[in-house]
Amino acid sequence: MVKVLRINMTNREIKSEELPEKYALLGGRALTSQIVSDEVPATSDPLGPFNKLVIAPGLLSGTSAPSSGRLSVGAKSPLTGGIKESNAGGITSQKLASLGIKALILEGQPEGNDWYGIKITSDGAEMFSAQDLAGKGTYEVTSLCRDRYGAKVAVITIGPAGEMRLLAAGVTNNDTEGNSSRYAGRGGLGAVMGSKKVKVIVVDSPSFNAPVKDAEKFKEAAKKFSKILMDHPVTGTGLPAYGTNVLMNIINEAGTLPTRNFRYGRFDGAAGVSGEKLAEVAVARGGKATHACHPGCVMRCSNIYPMPNGKVCAPVEYETAWGFGPNLLIADLDQVAMLNYICNDVGLDTIETGCALGVLMEAGVISFGDGKAAIEMLEEVGRGTALGRILGSGSVVAGKTYGVTRVPAVKGQGIPAYDPRSCKGNGVTYATSPMGADHTAGYAVTANILSVGGQVNPLLPEGQVDLSRNLQIATAAVDSTGLCLFVAFAVLDNPEGLPAIVDMLNAQYGLALSVDDVVKLGQQVLRVERRFNSEAGFTRADDRLPEFFQTEDLPPHNTRFDVSEADLDSVFNF
Amino acid sequence: MVKVLRINMTNREIKSEELPEKYALLGGRALTSQIVSDEVPATSDPLGPFNKLVIAPGLLSGTSAPSSGRLSVGAKSPLTGGIKESNAGGITSQKLASLGIKALILEGQPEGNDWYGIKITSDGAEMFSAQDLAGKGTYEVTSLCRDRYGAKVAVITIGPAGEMRLLAAGVTNNDTEGNSSRYAGRGGLGAVMGSKKVKVIVVDSPSFNAPVKDAEKFKEAAKKFSKILMDHPVTGTGLPAYGTNVLMNIINEAGTLPTRNFRYGRFDGAAGVSGEKLAEVAVARGGKATHACHPGCVMRCSNIYPMPNGKVCAPVEYETAWGFGPNLLIADLDQVAMLNYICNDVGLDTIETGCALGVLMEAGVISFGDGKAAIEMLEEVGRGTALGRILGSGSVVAGKTYGVTRVPAVKGQGIPAYDPRSCKGNGVTYATSPMGADHTAGYAVTANILSVGGQVNPLLPEGQVDLSRNLQIATAAVDSTGLCLFVAFAVLDNPEGLPAIVDMLNAQYGLALSVDDVVKLGQQVLRVERRFNSEAGFTRADDRLPEFFQTEDLPPHNTRFDVSEADLDSVFNF
Repeated sequence: MVKVLRINMTNREIKSEELPEKYALLGGRALTSQIVSDEVPATSDPLGPFNKLVIAPGLLSGTSAPSSGRLSVGAKSPLTGGIKESNAGGITSQKLASLGIKALILEGQPEGNDWYGIKITSDGAEMFSAQDLAGKGTYEVTSLCRDRYGAKVAVITIGPAGEMRLLAAGVTNNDTEGNSSRYAGRGGLGAVMGSKKVKVIVVDSPSFNAPVKDAEKFKEAAKKFSKILMDHPVTGTGLPAYGTNVLMNIINEAGTLPTRNFRYGRFDGAAGVSGEKLAEVAVARGGKATHACHPGCVMRCSNIYPMPNGKVCAPVEYETAWGFGPNLLIADLDQVAMLNYICNDVGLDTIETGCALGVLMEAGVISFGDGKAAIEMLEEVGRGTALGRILGSGSVVAGKTYGVTRVPAVKGQGIPAYDPRSCKGNGVTYATSPMGADHTAGYAVTANILSVGGQVNPLLPEGQVDLSRNLQIATAAVDSTGLCLFVAFAVLDNPEGLPAIVDMLNAQYGLALSVDDVVKLGQQVLRVERRFNSEAGFTRADDRLPEFFQTEDLPPHNTRFDVSEADLDSVFNF
Repeated sequence: MVKVLRINMTNREIKSEELPEKYALLGGRALTSQIVSDEVPATSDPLGPFNKLVIAPGLLSGTSAPSSGRLSVGAKSPLTGGIKESNAGGITSQKLASLGIKALILEGQPEGNDWYGIKITSDGAEMFSAQDLAGKGTYEVTSLCRDRYGAKVAVITIGPAGEMRLLAAGVTNNDTEGNSSRYAGRGGLGAVMGSKKVKVIVVDSPSFNAPVKDAEKFKEAAKKFSKILMDHPVTGTGLPAYGTNVLMNIINEAGTLPTRNFRYGRFDGAAGVSGEKLAEVAVARGGKATHACHPGCVMRCSNIYPMPNGKVCAPVEYETAWGFGPNLLIADLDQVAMLNYICNDVGLDTIETGCALGVLMEAGVISFGDGKAAIEMLEEVGRGTALGRILGSGSVVAGKTYGVTRVPAVKGQGIPAYDPRSCKGNGVTYATSPMGADHTAGYAVTANILSVGGQVNPLLPEGQVDLSRNLQIATAAVDSTGLCLFVAFAVLDNPEGLPAIVDMLNAQYGLALSVDDVVKLGQQVLRVERRFNSEAGFTRADDRLPEFFQTEDLPPHNTRFDVSEADLDSVFNF
């Protein structure tokens, strides 16, 4: 039986509820956004008792569909003030789906200062005291929980940043090896979990037990889909060889690598923090250049990077390497990995933290390029110092406290890894996504830079709105399936990709969906999210990039962001 | 000739422009809001080159109209993100008006780190280097400028807080004695002045030289108006005896004195920081219980409070005494005065700083009641420490960095001195004023508590919207005349008050305005401000009080804020 697990933290009651009929065909982002929209007052305080944290596996999670283990975490975001879905790899999604749990809803808020844990197994769910885990980093918490509950459990947790309810705090879960580095990082959802006083959620179950109505048909479609992924140069060759950080040299070459807090589009130290370099060093140190973040992933874009201090960071992804590398003028991969590791442990979004460090360097608090100083500052977050709290509150608060106007953020959320002035499709996504600045919400790097799914000149305003719109719709649908967004590389180029996904959904649920229905699902998700944001107070004025992207030229192309306001306002005309 | 002085900080050009015809009948807030609306893009960065700081005397300033020396300072606010007019006493308004200057517009932004000063005399305006004044407190800057340019000059300046572009930074000017304590404090306009790199503006001229068309008629109307003020118990007796802090015991007795960060409505230490106590101590130490903030004021609600450390705080006003007293559980008047003095010197809004200190005490950074610790923390602002910057960024940033949800603020601006749950008319004003939470924007304490201008039960939702609406309209008009808002006490009770103001305006400008025209002016000002805010991205969701005012009972009346959303949305139906 599929169900919703409702956990009321005000009275510590756990209820297993039948899945409402209207949610039957929703999963992942479609489900978290719908539940948040249905149950959370849009104007409520994100850290107050009326917000809810919703955790949902995707529609295909828990099956043998390749790369289908993505987990959606949703709430009203304390960082953006709007609706949020943040998406993570790791092993939790498949376990929840295998238990028949479509969504976990954390609601209410306890009195007092006690911390709680929740354990979910096939026998049900129960709450326990997590006082002994409070204040600990995510690595230790995950390790302790695996010791206590078995090495195969999934551990969803927050670090001290989430406990402090800092705006850049994420929610993490672990991979098969127990690395607590699979982050629903964006939007401060760790602060929401912290506001519920939930330190950890442990899920114990097999990984691939989700019910499938027509197993034979499903197997066939999954096999076909797997082949489509393996045949594509990005999903079959590029990502499995160097992971996401294969992008570092490509984006640098394209001149759209934000460097020194978005001052330049190229970084002469890029090669030193690239995927190629990372693979070389990782392998030489006994790590791995390639690795799957969840069982059943064929793209294996993760990596395992051993550091000289004996610690291991797994993985170092492109956007993180960018945020701590070119963005801060840091060309030392070990320093980048260490910043990544500390974020994972203390419980912070690496992109937001990279943006915030860039702003603080812009303010002169520490110098650009000074990786040692950046590490020291980041270590202040766990200690809860005033400066640590500023850093952990993200780029906008960093800018406000230090009087910086060059703050790369939209709707309060830091802009990642692709400069909107020379990758204008992404600029449209950053400006208009209901999520705030988010490269995954409509990844126009595809047609702008990678020649995937067509070609649109990244330097010109023409065509970017159509590109971003279509990608935002497709992404909202993919984020609802539990499939990794990276399948989109193959799906965009191979006309048989989307039908194969539809075939899997139909076989699993006994449906007769068409490709059109999946597009409609994506549109519906965006409509729900936009309506929530509108009720929360968002207007067209929020669908804009920061001023400096329109007034400062970005070398080497010396372009500005010039997609017109009227065009930006047309993104959601569908 | 009346004129606009336009000072472009990008190229350091000063132009004297003829007053556009459409601005002829505007002054004070009407003029600053109209110019900001006409010239500042609503979505521009408040600390960027497209914002403008507009300083304007009121329509009656520079004449012998009693209590007509109020100065309006306007811009897009970095604190609220909306339009702002902040209003100050002091001697500047009369001097500007006497020079025929209707408005001073600071625009653009220089490159580099140099600081500038501007000197304005009857010979014209010129810029000078203010490098030697940078980093200095407002008291020293004002004192140095009076030494250099003569004891009678008006000095508009910012403190280190404004130089750092902190969100709670104000713009100050001095009284006759040279105290730099007459603040356009609210909304972070000091940060806007700091973003223009203008440290100081010196104005040298007589105070009462504004042209008057019909001197005889004017004199008659002014005399009549003066008598109306002197005859009213508040403006003629209460304010001249104890200043604004006469309210402390009254508001405490009414049970609407926000205590311990808006947790209670009464403070058992209120008498110790009351106006009566202040008068007693001030006089005993050789200070003054009563004092005029500008020449020609008949209400003389200011005071001069000598502190044991030899410094003098002038004045300690009610809202400041509240913010540092009951709000922080501090009952020691000397500690309150010292916090006030430091704010004046470093250049911070006392209300916003009081709210931020309350939030930081709520977070446990320092303890409620610990005035010594509060003083030490406030001293960190000038040193630019991380904690000092958080405090200087106001209540919302303080709440964000420390994970506090009980943050008393609307549109980013801290709520002053009257709890909206038991003074519900003020609650409506806080929620809906285009200025953000601002008691002066529609001071419903009149009919809610003081039985001035009628009586409306402060504990019930009925009648509050009409009360606030009418007061917001009247206030917008009064703020445009240069008259002190306190004249409203008399005008609300005496039907001859408003006609006397109209008679003064008609005599000065050779007009035939009616009382209705003044009401229409107030409505027009609010429409302009609301339109700007709407274009800047404000919606009805911004016209709301923080959640906890609707969910927590306020002792002793145990009431919540229960004016309906529909009613709040009807405030601007006129």
